[in-house]
Amino acid sequence: NGFVHVKNPHLALMEEDILYHLELGTKTHNLPAMFGDIKFVCVGGSPKRMRAFAQFMHKELGLVGDEQELADICAGTDRYAMYRTGPVLSISHGMGIPSITIMLHELIKLLHHAKCRDVTIIRIGTSGGLGVEAGSVVITDMAVDSSFRPQFEQVVLDNVVVRSTELDKDLAQELLACSREITDFPTLMGHTMCTYDFYEGQGRLDGALCSFSSEQKFQYLQRAHGAGVRNIEMESTAFAALCGLCGLKGESPHAHSC
Amino acid sequence: NGFVHVKNPHLALMEEDILYHLELGTKTHNLPAMFGDIKFVCVGGSPKRMRAFAQFMHKELGLVGDEQELADICAGTDRYAMYRTGPVLSISHGMGIPSITIMLHELIKLLHHAKCRDVTIIRIGTSGGLGVEAGSVVITDMAVDSSFRPQFEQVVLDNVVVRSTELDKDLAQELLACSREITDFPTLMGHTMCTYDFYEGQGRLDGALCSFSSEQKFQYLQRAHGAGVRNIEMESTAFAALCGLCGLKGESPHAHSC
Repeated sequence: NGFVHVKNPHLALMEEDILYHLELGTKTHNLPAMFGDIKFVCVGGSPKRMRAFAQFMHKELGLVGDEQELADICAGTDRYAMYRTGPVLSISHGMGIPSITIMLHELIKLLHHAKCRDVTIIRIGTSGGLGVEAGSVVITDMAVDSSFRPQFEQVVLDNVVVRSTELDKDLAQELLACSREITDFPTLMGHTMCTYDFYEGQGRLDGALCSFSSEQKFQYLQRAHGAGVRNIEMESTAFAALCGLCGLKGESPHAHSC
Repeated sequence: NGFVHVKNPHLALMEEDILYHLELGTKTHNLPAMFGDIKFVCVGGSPKRMRAFAQFMHKELGLVGDEQELADICAGTDRYAMYRTGPVLSISHGMGIPSITIMLHELIKLLHHAKCRDVTIIRIGTSGGLGVEAGSVVITDMAVDSSFRPQFEQVVLDNVVVRSTELDKDLAQELLACSREITDFPTLMGHTMCTYDFYEGQGRLDGALCSFSSEQKFQYLQRAHGAGVRNIEMESTAFAALCGLCGLKGESPHAHSC
Protein backbone atom coordinates (compact mmCIF):
# COMPACT_ATOMS: atom_id res chain seq x y z
CA ASN A 1 0.00 0.00 0.00
CA GLY A 2 3.05 2.27 -0.12
CA PHE A 3 2.89 3.34 3.52
CA VAL A 4 6.12 3.74 5.45
CA HIS A 5 5.99 1.00 8.05
CA VAL A 6 7.60 0.46 11.41
CA LYS A 7 8.56 -3.04 12.58
CA ASN A 8 7.88 -2.65 16.25
CA PRO A 9 4.79 -4.15 17.91
CA HIS A 10 5.32 -1.97 21.02
CA LEU A 11 4.69 1.31 19.19
CA ALA A 12 0.96 0.69 18.64
CA LEU A 13 0.53 0.29 22.42
CA MET A 14 2.14 3.61 23.28
CA GLU A 15 -0.02 6.61 24.14
CA GLU A 16 2.54 9.08 22.92
CA ASP A 17 5.61 8.76 20.75
CA ILE A 18 8.29 11.36 21.38
CA LEU A 19 10.88 11.77 18.63
CA TYR A 20 13.51 12.93 21.13
CA HIS A 21 16.28 14.02 18.79
CA LEU A 22 13.96 15.86 16.41
CA GLU A 23 12.00 17.63 19.17
CA LEU A 24 8.73 16.43 17.68
CA GLY A 25 6.03 14.14 19.06
CA THR A 26 2.61 12.66 18.38
CA LYS A 27 0.94 14.67 21.18
CA THR A 28 2.76 17.95 20.71
CA HIS A 29 2.57 18.08 16.91
CA ASN A 30 -0.01 17.24 14.25
CA LEU A 31 2.34 15.08 12.22
CA PRO A 32 -0.16 14.11 9.43
CA ALA A 33 -0.91 17.80 8.83
CA MET A 34 2.76 18.80 8.94
CA PHE A 35 4.20 15.93 6.89
CA GLY A 36 1.40 13.83 5.33
CA ASP A 37 2.15 14.93 1.75
CA ILE A 38 5.93 14.41 1.87
CA LYS A 39 7.13 12.32 -1.11
CA PHE A 40 10.90 12.84 -1.07
CA VAL A 41 13.39 12.95 1.79
CA CYS A 42 16.95 14.08 1.10
CA VAL A 43 19.56 13.56 3.79
CA GLY A 44 23.18 14.65 4.19
CA GLY A 45 25.69 15.16 6.99
CA SER A 46 25.96 18.92 7.40
CA PRO A 47 23.05 21.08 8.65
CA LYS A 48 24.21 24.11 6.64
CA ARG A 49 24.36 22.12 3.42
CA MET A 50 20.91 20.63 3.97
CA ARG A 51 19.60 24.16 4.49
CA ALA A 52 21.29 25.25 1.26
CA PHE A 53 19.75 22.23 -0.50
CA ALA A 54 16.27 23.14 0.79
CA GLN A 55 16.75 26.70 -0.49
CA PHE A 56 17.82 25.33 -3.87
CA MET A 57 14.74 23.06 -4.00
CA HIS A 58 12.51 25.99 -3.05
CA LYS A 59 13.73 27.92 -6.08
CA GLU A 60 13.68 24.89 -8.42
CA LEU A 61 10.07 24.12 -7.46
CA GLY A 62 9.09 27.78 -8.00
CA LEU A 63 7.50 28.01 -4.56
CA VAL A 64 6.23 31.33 -3.24
CA GLY A 65 8.02 33.12 -0.41
CA ASP A 66 11.64 33.95 0.32
CA GLU A 67 13.84 30.85 0.45
CA GLN A 68 16.13 32.68 2.88
CA GLU A 69 13.36 32.49 5.45
CA LEU A 70 12.94 28.70 5.48
CA ALA A 71 12.58 27.69 9.12
CA ASP A 72 14.39 24.77 10.77
CA ILE A 73 11.58 22.43 11.88
CA CYS A 74 13.93 20.98 14.53
CA ALA A 75 15.07 24.40 15.79
CA GLY A 76 14.49 23.25 19.38
CA THR A 77 17.50 20.92 19.17
CA ASP A 78 20.97 21.17 17.67
CA ARG A 79 21.21 17.41 17.04
CA TYR A 80 19.72 17.63 13.53
CA ALA A 81 18.29 20.31 11.21
CA MET A 82 15.15 19.79 9.07
CA TYR A 83 13.57 21.90 6.34
CA ARG A 84 10.63 21.29 4.06
CA THR A 85 9.93 22.73 0.62
CA GLY A 86 6.79 21.43 -1.06
CA PRO A 87 6.86 17.61 -0.99
CA VAL A 88 10.59 17.52 -0.20
CA LEU A 89 12.03 17.13 3.29
CA SER A 90 15.72 17.98 3.77
CA ILE A 91 17.41 16.67 6.93
CA SER A 92 20.96 16.57 8.28
CA HIS A 93 22.27 13.41 9.94
CA GLY A 94 25.73 14.26 11.30
CA MET A 95 28.66 11.93 10.68
CA GLY A 96 28.75 8.14 10.93
CA ILE A 97 26.39 5.20 11.30
CA PRO A 98 25.26 5.79 14.91
CA SER A 99 24.36 9.40 14.16
CA ILE A 100 22.39 8.68 10.95
CA THR A 101 20.68 5.70 12.61
CA ILE A 102 19.20 7.77 15.45
CA MET A 103 17.84 10.23 12.88
CA LEU A 104 16.45 7.48 10.61
CA HIS A 105 14.61 5.69 13.44
CA GLU A 106 12.84 8.93 14.31
CA LEU A 107 12.30 9.99 10.68
CA ILE A 108 10.73 6.62 9.83
CA LYS A 109 8.40 6.91 12.82
CA LEU A 110 7.57 10.47 11.77
CA LEU A 111 6.64 9.37 8.23
CA HIS A 112 4.67 6.44 9.67
CA HIS A 113 2.69 8.60 12.11
CA ALA A 114 2.11 11.16 9.33
CA LYS A 115 0.67 8.36 7.11
CA CYS A 116 3.02 9.23 4.26
CA ARG A 117 2.87 7.02 1.14
CA ASP A 118 5.38 6.15 -1.58
CA VAL A 119 8.25 8.05 -0.05
CA THR A 120 11.64 8.09 -1.77
CA ILE A 121 14.72 8.79 0.35
CA ILE A 122 18.04 9.88 -1.12
CA ARG A 123 21.32 10.43 0.71
CA ILE A 124 23.24 13.24 -1.00
CA GLY A 125 26.31 13.51 1.23
CA THR A 126 29.99 13.79 0.32
CA SER A 127 32.34 10.85 -0.07
CA GLY A 128 35.88 10.04 -1.14
CA GLY A 129 36.19 8.79 -4.72
CA LEU A 130 38.15 5.70 -5.67
CA GLY A 131 39.71 5.72 -9.14
CA VAL A 132 37.10 8.10 -10.52
CA GLU A 133 37.42 11.59 -11.98
CA ALA A 134 37.44 14.39 -9.36
CA GLY A 135 34.02 15.97 -9.03
CA SER A 136 32.11 12.88 -10.22
CA VAL A 137 28.87 11.76 -8.65
CA VAL A 138 28.72 8.08 -7.71
CA ILE A 139 25.25 6.53 -7.67
CA THR A 140 25.36 3.58 -5.29
CA ASP A 141 24.21 0.26 -6.75
CA MET A 142 25.28 -1.56 -3.60
CA ALA A 143 26.50 -0.46 -0.17
CA VAL A 144 29.30 -2.67 1.18
CA ASP A 145 31.23 -2.87 4.45
CA SER A 146 35.01 -2.55 4.94
CA SER A 147 35.42 -6.16 3.78
CA PHE A 148 33.38 -5.42 0.61
CA ARG A 149 30.37 -7.46 1.77
CA PRO A 150 26.87 -6.14 0.95
CA GLN A 151 25.68 -6.33 4.53
CA PHE A 152 25.21 -4.34 7.71
CA GLU A 153 25.87 -5.86 11.12
CA GLN A 154 23.45 -4.44 13.66
CA VAL A 155 23.97 -5.15 17.35
CA VAL A 156 20.54 -5.82 18.91
CA LEU A 157 21.01 -6.00 22.69
CA ASP A 158 24.16 -8.15 22.61
CA ASN A 159 23.34 -10.16 19.49
CA VAL A 160 24.67 -9.37 16.03
CA VAL A 161 22.00 -9.35 13.31
CA VAL A 162 23.13 -9.23 9.68
CA ARG A 163 20.97 -7.10 7.37
CA SER A 164 20.83 -6.64 3.62
CA THR A 165 22.08 -3.36 2.16
CA GLU A 166 20.20 -3.57 -1.11
CA LEU A 167 19.08 -0.27 -2.61
CA ASP A 168 16.32 0.40 -5.12
CA LYS A 169 17.66 -0.57 -8.56
CA ASP A 170 14.98 1.27 -10.57
CA LEU A 171 15.60 4.46 -8.62
CA ALA A 172 19.34 4.17 -9.22
CA GLN A 173 18.72 3.78 -12.97
CA GLU A 174 16.31 6.71 -12.93
CA LEU A 175 18.87 8.95 -11.23
CA LEU A 176 21.52 7.87 -13.72
CA ALA A 177 19.15 8.71 -16.59
CA CYS A 178 18.49 12.15 -15.05
CA SER A 179 22.21 12.83 -14.81
CA ARG A 180 22.59 12.08 -18.53
CA GLU A 181 20.28 15.00 -19.32
CA ILE A 182 22.72 17.45 -17.72
CA THR A 183 25.88 18.41 -19.58
CA ASP A 184 29.25 18.28 -17.78
CA PHE A 185 27.83 16.25 -14.92
CA PRO A 186 30.13 13.22 -14.61
CA THR A 187 28.09 10.45 -13.03
CA LEU A 188 28.66 6.74 -12.68
CA MET A 189 27.17 3.75 -10.94
CA GLY A 190 29.28 1.74 -8.48
CA HIS A 191 29.55 0.15 -5.06
CA THR A 192 29.89 2.46 -2.08
CA MET A 193 32.04 1.29 0.83
CA CYS A 194 30.92 2.34 4.30
CA THR A 195 33.41 2.52 7.18
CA TYR A 196 33.20 3.31 10.89
CA ASP A 197 36.31 5.46 10.79
CA PHE A 198 37.56 8.28 8.59
CA TYR A 199 41.30 7.89 9.24
CA GLU A 200 42.44 4.33 10.03
CA GLY A 201 39.32 2.82 8.44
CA GLN A 202 39.75 4.56 5.08
CA GLY A 203 43.49 4.16 4.69
CA ARG A 204 44.38 7.78 5.45
CA LEU A 205 48.03 8.43 6.29
CA ASP A 206 47.38 11.65 8.22
CA GLY A 207 45.43 10.65 11.33
CA ALA A 208 46.75 10.84 14.91
CA LEU A 209 47.31 7.09 14.61
CA CYS A 210 48.55 5.26 11.53
CA SER A 211 50.11 1.80 11.70
CA PHE A 212 50.12 0.96 7.97
CA SER A 213 52.49 1.91 5.17
CA SER A 214 51.61 3.90 2.08
CA GLU A 215 51.95 0.63 0.15
CA GLN A 216 49.52 -1.24 2.41
CA LYS A 217 47.06 1.60 1.97
CA PHE A 218 47.24 1.38 -1.82
CA GLN A 219 46.93 -2.41 -1.77
CA TYR A 220 43.76 -2.15 0.31
CA LEU A 221 42.22 0.54 -1.87
CA GLN A 222 43.15 -1.44 -4.98
CA ARG A 223 41.38 -4.49 -3.58
CA ALA A 224 38.35 -2.30 -2.85
CA HIS A 225 38.42 -0.98 -6.42
CA GLY A 226 38.73 -4.51 -7.74
CA ALA A 227 35.63 -5.45 -5.74
CA GLY A 228 33.69 -2.69 -7.50
CA VAL A 229 33.97 0.07 -4.89
CA ARG A 230 33.97 3.54 -6.46
CA ASN A 231 33.60 5.70 -3.36
CA ILE A 232 33.92 5.56 0.44
CA GLU A 233 31.78 7.18 3.10
CA MET A 234 30.41 6.49 6.58
CA GLU A 235 26.63 5.95 6.48
CA SER A 236 25.46 3.98 3.43
CA THR A 237 25.15 0.43 4.82
CA ALA A 238 23.01 1.49 7.80
CA PHE A 239 20.98 3.81 5.55
CA ALA A 240 20.28 1.01 3.05
CA ALA A 241 19.45 -1.57 5.76
CA LEU A 242 17.08 0.61 7.78
CA CYS A 243 15.25 2.22 4.83
CA GLY A 244 14.91 -1.14 3.08
CA LEU A 245 13.32 -2.76 6.14
CA CYS A 246 10.75 0.03 6.53
CA GLY A 247 9.49 0.37 2.96
CA LEU A 248 11.37 3.53 2.01
CA LYS A 249 12.64 3.49 -1.57
CA GLY A 250 16.26 4.41 -1.00
CA GLU A 251 19.20 5.64 -3.06
CA SER A 252 22.56 7.10 -2.29
CA PRO A 253 24.30 9.22 -4.94
CA HIS A 254 27.37 10.97 -3.57
CA ALA A 255 29.34 13.86 -4.90
CA HIS A 256 32.88 12.87 -4.08
CA SER A 257 35.39 15.33 -2.83
CA CYS A 258 38.75 13.90 -3.77
CA ASN B 1 57.62 14.42 29.11
CA GLY B 2 53.88 15.03 29.23
CA PHE B 3 53.55 15.98 25.56
CA VAL B 4 50.51 14.80 23.63
CA HIS B 5 51.91 12.38 21.09
CA VAL B 6 50.73 11.08 17.75
CA LYS B 7 51.52 7.51 16.67
CA ASN B 8 51.94 8.09 12.99
CA PRO B 9 55.39 8.16 11.33
CA HIS B 10 53.94 9.78 8.19
CA LEU B 11 52.97 13.02 9.94
CA ALA B 12 56.56 14.19 10.49
CA LEU B 13 57.16 13.98 6.72
CA MET B 14 54.20 16.15 5.79
CA GLU B 15 54.73 19.79 4.86
CA GLU B 16 51.31 20.82 6.04
CA ASP B 17 48.71 19.17 8.23
CA ILE B 18 45.14 20.21 7.56
CA LEU B 19 42.63 19.44 10.31
CA TYR B 20 39.77 19.20 7.81
CA HIS B 21 36.80 18.94 10.14
CA LEU B 22 38.01 21.70 12.48
CA GLU B 23 38.94 24.10 9.67
CA LEU B 24 42.39 24.58 11.16
CA GLY B 25 45.85 23.76 9.82
CA THR B 26 49.56 24.06 10.50
CA LYS B 27 50.14 26.55 7.66
CA THR B 28 47.01 28.64 8.07
CA HIS B 29 47.09 28.92 11.87
CA ASN B 30 49.76 29.42 14.53
CA LEU B 31 48.66 26.45 16.63
CA PRO B 32 51.30 26.81 19.42
CA ALA B 33 50.28 30.46 19.93
CA MET B 34 46.56 29.63 19.81
CA PHE B 35 46.58 26.47 21.93
CA GLY B 36 50.04 25.94 23.53
CA ASP B 37 48.86 26.65 27.09
CA ILE B 38 45.73 24.43 27.00
CA LYS B 39 45.62 22.08 30.03
CA PHE B 40 42.02 20.80 29.98
CA VAL B 41 39.78 19.69 27.15
CA CYS B 42 36.10 19.07 27.82
CA VAL B 43 34.02 17.35 25.15
CA GLY B 44 30.32 16.62 24.74
CA GLY B 45 27.87 15.86 21.94
CA SER B 46 25.90 19.06 21.47
CA PRO B 47 27.48 22.30 20.15
CA LYS B 48 25.05 24.48 22.10
CA ARG B 49 25.82 22.72 25.36
CA MET B 50 29.56 22.98 24.82
CA ARG B 51 29.11 26.71 24.22
CA ALA B 52 27.08 26.97 27.45
CA PHE B 53 29.82 25.04 29.26
CA ALA B 54 32.50 27.42 27.94
CA GLN B 55 30.42 30.38 29.13
CA PHE B 56 30.09 28.74 32.55
CA MET B 57 33.87 28.16 32.72
CA HIS B 58 34.50 31.78 31.68
CA LYS B 59 32.51 32.98 34.67
CA GLU B 60 33.93 30.36 37.08
CA LEU B 61 37.50 31.34 36.14
CA GLY B 62 36.68 35.04 36.58
CA LEU B 63 38.01 35.90 33.14
CA VAL B 64 37.61 39.41 31.73
CA GLY B 65 35.20 40.09 28.86
CA ASP B 66 31.61 39.14 28.14
CA GLU B 67 31.10 35.38 28.09
CA GLN B 68 28.23 35.90 25.63
CA GLU B 69 30.80 36.94 23.06
CA LEU B 70 32.92 33.79 23.11
CA ALA B 71 33.73 32.98 19.49
CA ASP B 72 33.48 29.53 17.91
CA ILE B 73 37.06 28.72 16.83
CA CYS B 74 35.66 26.29 14.23
CA ALA B 75 33.07 28.78 12.91
CA GLY B 76 34.12 27.95 9.33
CA THR B 77 32.54 24.50 9.61
CA ASP B 78 29.34 23.14 11.13
CA ARG B 79 30.86 19.70 11.84
CA TYR B 80 32.07 20.67 15.34
CA ALA B 81 32.08 23.75 17.58
CA MET B 82 35.10 24.79 19.71
CA TYR B 83 35.50 27.45 22.40
CA ARG B 84 38.40 28.33 24.68
CA THR B 85 38.32 29.98 28.09
CA GLY B 86 41.69 30.33 29.80
CA PRO B 87 43.40 26.91 29.79
CA VAL B 88 40.14 25.09 29.03
CA LEU B 89 39.06 24.00 25.54
CA SER B 90 35.39 23.04 25.07
CA ILE B 91 34.52 21.03 21.94
CA SER B 92 31.43 19.27 20.61
CA HIS B 93 31.73 15.83 19.01
CA GLY B 94 28.29 14.95 17.66
CA MET B 95 26.76 11.54 18.36
CA GLY B 96 28.43 8.14 18.18
CA ILE B 97 31.88 6.62 17.86
CA PRO B 98 32.62 7.59 14.22
CA SER B 99 31.76 11.22 14.91
CA ILE B 100 33.82 11.55 18.12
CA THR B 101 36.72 9.67 16.52
CA ILE B 102 37.08 12.13 13.62
CA MET B 103 37.16 14.99 16.13
CA LEU B 104 39.63 13.24 18.46
CA HIS B 105 42.11 12.44 15.66
CA GLU B 106 42.18 16.11 14.71
CA LEU B 107 42.17 17.37 18.31
CA ILE B 108 45.11 15.13 19.23
CA LYS B 109 47.07 16.40 16.22
CA LEU B 110 46.15 19.97 17.19
CA LEU B 111 47.46 19.49 20.76
CA HIS B 112 50.57 17.76 19.36
CA HIS B 113 51.33 20.55 16.87
CA ALA B 114 50.66 23.16 19.58
CA LYS B 115 53.21 21.37 21.85
CA CYS B 116 50.72 21.12 24.71
CA ARG B 117 51.85 19.30 27.86
CA ASP B 118 50.02 17.43 30.62
CA VAL B 119 46.60 17.76 29.06
CA THR B 120 43.55 16.27 30.80
CA ILE B 121 40.50 15.42 28.67
CA ILE B 122 37.04 14.88 30.12
CA ARG B 123 33.88 13.82 28.31
CA ILE B 124 30.89 15.47 29.96
CA GLY B 125 28.05 14.23 27.73
CA THR B 126 24.66 12.82 28.65
CA SER B 127 23.93 9.13 29.12
CA GLY B 128 21.16 6.79 30.20
CA GLY B 129 21.44 5.62 33.83
CA LEU B 130 21.12 1.99 34.86
CA GLY B 131 19.71 1.38 38.31
CA VAL B 132 20.90 4.73 39.62
CA GLU B 133 19.00 7.71 40.99
CA ALA B 134 17.71 10.11 38.31
CA GLY B 135 20.02 13.09 37.93
CA SER B 136 23.12 11.26 39.19
CA VAL B 137 26.54 11.72 37.64
CA VAL B 138 28.36 8.51 36.79
CA ILE B 139 32.18 8.74 36.76
CA THR B 140 33.45 6.01 34.47
CA ASP B 141 35.99 3.63 36.00
CA MET B 142 35.91 1.47 32.88
CA ALA B 143 34.34 1.79 29.44
CA VAL B 144 32.89 -1.49 28.16
CA ASP B 145 31.28 -2.64 24.90
CA SER B 146 27.79 -4.11 24.42
CA SER B 147 29.09 -7.48 25.66
CA PHE B 148 30.53 -5.80 28.80
CA ARG B 149 34.15 -6.25 27.68
CA PRO B 150 36.65 -3.44 28.45
CA GLN B 151 37.81 -3.13 24.86
CA PHE B 152 37.33 -1.23 21.65
CA GLU B 153 37.46 -2.95 18.27
CA GLN B 154 38.96 -0.62 15.69
CA VAL B 155 38.85 -1.58 12.01
CA VAL B 156 42.20 -0.60 10.45
CA LEU B 157 41.90 -1.07 6.68
CA ASP B 158 40.07 -4.41 6.83
CA ASN B 159 41.73 -5.77 9.98
CA VAL B 160 40.17 -5.62 13.42
CA VAL B 161 42.52 -4.30 16.13
CA VAL B 162 41.44 -4.64 19.77
CA ARG B 163 42.37 -1.70 22.01
CA SER B 164 42.26 -1.15 25.75
CA THR B 165 39.62 1.21 27.15
CA GLU B 166 41.37 1.96 30.42
CA LEU B 167 40.83 5.44 31.84
CA ASP B 168 42.94 7.37 34.33
CA LYS B 169 42.17 5.95 37.79
CA ASP B 170 43.69 8.87 39.74
CA LEU B 171 41.68 11.37 37.73
CA ALA B 172 38.48 9.40 38.35
CA GLN B 173 39.19 9.43 42.11
CA GLU B 174 39.98 13.14 41.99
CA LEU B 175 36.68 13.91 40.26
CA LEU B 176 34.82 11.78 42.78
CA ALA B 177 36.51 13.68 45.62
CA CYS B 178 35.51 17.00 44.00
CA SER B 179 31.90 15.87 43.75
CA ARG B 180 31.87 15.12 47.49
CA GLU B 181 32.57 18.81 48.21
CA ILE B 182 29.28 19.81 46.55
CA THR B 183 26.02 19.24 48.39
CA ASP B 184 23.11 17.52 46.63
CA PHE B 185 25.31 16.32 43.80
CA PRO B 186 24.69 12.56 43.58
CA THR B 187 27.81 11.01 42.06
CA LEU B 188 29.01 7.45 41.80
CA MET B 189 31.74 5.44 40.11
CA GLY B 190 30.81 2.63 37.71
CA HIS B 191 31.33 1.02 34.33
CA THR B 192 29.97 2.85 31.30
CA MET B 193 28.62 0.76 28.43
CA CYS B 194 29.16 2.14 24.94
CA THR B 195 26.87 1.09 22.06
CA TYR B 196 26.71 1.81 18.33
CA ASP B 197 22.96 2.28 18.41
CA PHE B 198 20.53 4.25 20.56
CA TYR B 199 17.40 2.15 19.93
CA GLU B 200 18.04 -1.54 19.22
CA GLY B 201 21.50 -1.41 20.83
CA GLN B 202 20.30 0.01 24.15
CA GLY B 203 17.16 -2.07 24.59
CA ARG B 204 14.69 0.71 23.75
CA LEU B 205 11.17 -0.40 22.91
CA ASP B 206 10.27 2.72 20.92
CA GLY B 207 12.47 2.66 17.81
CA ALA B 208 11.23 2.16 14.24
CA LEU B 209 12.47 -1.44 14.63
CA CYS B 210 12.20 -3.57 17.75
CA SER B 211 12.41 -7.36 17.67
CA PHE B 212 12.77 -8.04 21.40
CA SER B 213 10.23 -8.22 24.20
CA SER B 214 10.09 -5.99 27.23
CA GLU B 215 11.27 -9.01 29.24
CA GLN B 216 14.31 -9.60 27.01
CA LYS B 217 15.17 -5.93 27.38
CA PHE B 218 15.09 -6.12 31.16
CA GLN B 219 17.12 -9.34 31.19
CA TYR B 220 19.82 -7.69 29.09
CA LEU B 221 19.92 -4.55 31.20
CA GLN B 222 20.00 -6.66 34.36
CA ARG B 223 22.98 -8.59 33.02
CA ALA B 224 24.66 -5.26 32.22
CA HIS B 225 23.97 -4.04 35.76
CA GLY B 226 25.33 -7.30 37.17
CA ALA B 227 28.52 -6.74 35.16
CA GLY B 228 28.96 -3.35 36.86
CA VAL B 229 27.44 -1.09 34.18
CA ARG B 230 25.83 2.03 35.66
CA ASN B 231 25.19 4.04 32.53
CA ILE B 232 25.00 3.69 28.74
CA GLU B 233 26.16 6.06 26.03
CA MET B 234 27.70 6.00 22.55
CA GLU B 235 31.30 7.27 22.66
CA SER B 236 33.23 6.13 25.74
CA THR B 237 35.15 3.10 24.43
CA ALA B 238 36.56 4.96 21.41
CA PHE B 239 37.29 8.00 23.61
CA ALA B 240 39.19 5.89 26.17
CA ALA B 241 41.12 3.94 23.51
CA LEU B 242 42.23 6.91 21.44
CA CYS B 243 43.11 9.25 24.33
CA GLY B 244 44.94 6.46 26.15
CA LEU B 245 47.13 5.69 23.12
CA CYS B 246 48.11 9.35 22.66
CA GLY B 247 49.05 10.31 26.22
CA LEU B 248 45.94 12.27 27.12
CA LYS B 249 44.80 11.74 30.69
CA GLY B 250 41.15 10.86 30.12
CA GLU B 251 37.96 10.62 32.16
CA SER B 252 34.31 10.36 31.38
CA PRO B 253 31.77 11.49 33.97
CA HIS B 254 28.24 11.60 32.58
CA ALA B 255 25.15 13.29 33.84
CA HIS B 256 22.47 10.77 33.07
CA SER B 257 19.12 11.78 31.77
CA CYS B 258 16.76 8.98 32.72
